[in-house]
Amino acid sequence: MQLRRVRIAGTGKYLPQMKVTDEELDERLNVPAGWVSKATGVGYRYYASDEETSSYMGARAAEAALADAGLSFDEIDCLVCTSGTKEQPLPSTAVFIQQAMGQEESGVPAFDMDATCLSFLNGLDVISYMVDAGRYQRVLLVATEIASAGLNWKDPESAALFGDGAAAVIIERASVESGSQIVHASLRTYSRGARFSEIAGGGTRQHAARYDVAHPDPFLFHMDGQAIFRMASKLLPGFMDEMLQASGNQMEDFSLVIPHQGSAMAMRLIRKKLGIPAERFMDITRGHGNTIAASIPMGLHEAIRQQRIERGDRVLMIGTAAGLSLGGLIFDY
Amino acid sequence: MQLRRVRIAGTGKYLPQMKVTDEELDERLNVPAGWVSKATGVGYRYYASDEETSSYMGARAAEAALADAGLSFDEIDCLVCTSGTKEQPLPSTAVFIQQAMGQEESGVPAFDMDATCLSFLNGLDVISYMVDAGRYQRVLLVATEIASAGLNWKDPESAALFGDGAAAVIIERASVESGSQIVHASLRTYSRGARFSEIAGGGTRQHAARYDVAHPDPFLFHMDGQAIFRMASKLLPGFMDEMLQASGNQMEDFSLVIPHQGSAMAMRLIRKKLGIPAERFMDITRGHGNTIAASIPMGLHEAIRQQRIERGDRVLMIGTAAGLSLGGLIFDY
Repeated sequence: MQLRRVRIAGTGKYLPQMKVTDEELDERLNVPAGWVSKATGVGYRYYASDEETSSYMGARAAEAALADAGLSFDEIDCLVCTSGTKEQPLPSTAVFIQQAMGQEESGVPAFDMDATCLSFLNGLDVISYMVDAGRYQRVLLVATEIASAGLNWKDPESAALFGDGAAAVIIERASVESGSQIVHASLRTYSRGARFSEIAGGGTRQHAARYDVAHPDPFLFHMDGQAIFRMASKLLPGFMDEMLQASGNQMEDFSLVIPHQGSAMAMRLIRKKLGIPAERFMDITRGHGNTIAASIPMGLHEAIRQQRIERGDRVLMIGTAAGLSLGGLIFDY
Repeated sequence: MQLRRVRIAGTGKYLPQMKVTDEELDERLNVPAGWVSKATGVGYRYYASDEETSSYMGARAAEAALADAGLSFDEIDCLVCTSGTKEQPLPSTAVFIQQAMGQEESGVPAFDMDATCLSFLNGLDVISYMVDAGRYQRVLLVATEIASAGLNWKDPESAALFGDGAAAVIIERASVESGSQIVHASLRTYSRGARFSEIAGGGTRQHAARYDVAHPDPFLFHMDGQAIFRMASKLLPGFMDEMLQASGNQMEDFSLVIPHQGSAMAMRLIRKKLGIPAERFMDITRGHGNTIAASIPMGLHEAIRQQRIERGDRVLMIGTAAGLSLGGLIFDY
């Protein structure tokens, strides 16, 4: 138990304008009609245009979260971008989000935190300690992802899964009376799986100058779905048991479980291994796909909007990420 | 004042094997003999080989820090990579550091934090709240940078400044009797300066596929030194005043100031604007250059090794970073 008096004050979401259906992807990926729908269950997802940069989408989601919370930017003390991808290698994406919000003279601290698909969950966990301690009264967390930029269209298995978009969450110090709190959280990283999903090129090890039009693969997303599945299957039950034991909870205590929407396969794995009934499992794969680190806060946003959680409810966020990492966070909304 | 009972338990450093002198750079940059030396005052810096990846260097620095602290990896609860560059776009560099340390089954949480050149300072600031709260007993912070991969050799002004290398710092919960603590910290970001230093291409906005051999500039480091200087000159005094006031300190209270070794110009600016005498100013530009976020922890490492700070001393870390951000952290060693 690591209680932190932190409350979710508002959430927001942005989806790009271009909707891409499973049927359109069947053609693009050159697979038989119906393959993408069967393989992913996504139905449709959105791809960002050139104008819809990570920072543009992040800023729009952040503005929606401010409106939802009834706050203005002046009341935000810190802006953290919790994405698994970056708008550009340098500086941090949070800086560009601040700029895209028209706040370039604000001085509000802006930096990035990256735990791939668990970036938001981990960012919320880490930053909540600062909020609980009173360092920052209110923090804006933004996860904004353009998966489509790095997909390998010759690999239907991975390319079909992803969608672009952004989600933002404002956290603030909670009064004891509010009952809102973060109850417990855990992150575990097993780098044996470091290359099970990766984009190898584009950083300092393989600079963009090494990009070869004839062999673009190292600069595109690569995923070994089976290896991830095997590793996650083995680790997940023990990981969850440890969280339940440490927090004194049982699975029945959670009004809702918000998983990372990795893939239909990953979602089934979580539901089955943890024994969660459908009515207490937030599934927004349809219409979104895997939006990397935006996936969990989008699920949270939709859960609140659709009134699947109410103030006082105990909620579990959980997922796996490239790394390979497992993460979970229990909070009272 | 935001006291956190956190103690620096050990530090380590790694420099690549290849030493590059100012004279060699004069030739490579096609500038008159003596130009690099006069412009930078670096003398020599090191460039990483292909084998000396960010994670390789980070792991070696981390092992040195463990040895310095008399600890084994088993005693580390979390590994945070606090670098301004990444080994590859996905997953986080911390994962590869864990792997390069031979700890791939350890489960130790691993993630990245990026505030460009202030990544270490900000990481130390943020994570200290988790250590103070007892969430993690001991955390390994690693800043590891390969600047040389992205330098623009047609721009001597920026290319001459940088060096590669890594530094690692282990922090742990401090007893009250130890007297070790973080006293105060501040980060401010003004995104008006977002493009004063940047690498524009290689992220989601300009994927590596857009790399054009004839026009590589967008994928290389760009810096407008004069614009940074003007903006930092204006902001720095107010930033420091605010820190001193909030923490109840005067400049004389600091046994040592460890600045980000941005450039000779940036260092002179800090010294002049803040009125710091040379003997209380840690200058390791010579032999290192600007090692991005590894610069401040390298300065800390050298300050301890050279006995320029001792237990009980009050120390100020300070610097500016791409963003444009200003950061400062006051701690009792």
